[in-house]
Amino acid sequence: MLLRLDHIGIAVQNVSDALGFFERALGMKLDHVALEEGGRTEVAFLPVGGSEVELVQTHDPESGLGKFLAKRGEGIHHLCFEVDDIHAALARLRENGAQLIDETPRVNTSGMQYAFIHPKSAHGVLIELYQKPNS
Amino acid sequence: MLLRLDHIGIAVQNVSDALGFFERALGMKLDHVALEEGGRTEVAFLPVGGSEVELVQTHDPESGLGKFLAKRGEGIHHLCFEVDDIHAALARLRENGAQLIDETPRVNTSGMQYAFIHPKSAHGVLIELYQKPNS
Repeated sequence: MLLRLDHIGIAVQNVSDALGFFERALGMKLDHVALEEGGRTEVAFLPVGGSEVELVQTHDPESGLGKFLAKRGEGIHHLCFEVDDIHAALARLRENGAQLIDETPRVNTSGMQYAFIHPKSAHGVLIELYQKPNS
Repeated sequence: MLLRLDHIGIAVQNVSDALGFFERALGMKLDHVALEEGGRTEVAFLPVGGSEVELVQTHDPESGLGKFLAKRGEGIHHLCFEVDDIHAALARLRENGAQLIDETPRVNTSGMQYAFIHPKSAHGVLIELYQKPNS
């Protein structure tokens, strides 16, 4: 079951430049900026209501995000929904013929499980599902 | 001030086909499907948490959505944020050099005021702002 929209990932060339729009012009509140994936990715977190906008910059042109930027330019990269049972969610997708990028969930250092659905199955939308640890 | 993410508009070729993924495979709950703009647009509303996914199909290939589909194919079309004061929000955007599609808010039949920001100013994201009537 989908609980909520956790975040919208927006691919940007430069996080500082993008904050000039999203923070100063649009008036979103910046929570923090973090380096992730060993410094290869820079992310600005802007909570709004119960969700979050994440501005994502990569320092690796060969990454998925780097290729997305080269091909499509800046814009929305993915949506992430929180689910209560990621294994059940992936099973349901599989039963209904959806193409998964991750057949089984990946686990990050915080114990969070996550998996991506291929945009070919999802009407052009890259969708991430995640389940909190111990939920 | 941005209050919350109201909805994500996803451009699809056919709402019924898209529900095969978003409702049946992904497990979202369909609230209802409505014809809008005099029957030219068909929209499926799928609430999730405090936000909503809207699957939007157009019967008018010359509309903005029709041109988007022809050029980019299916995918996320726009984000819509609820604001408490749309005039103040547009003024702030203008002061910070953002390019607006609507210099003043449009008003729909329900009295809701809304305006779009040009994606060129918003790092490739088409953003709609709306203010509830009497707020």
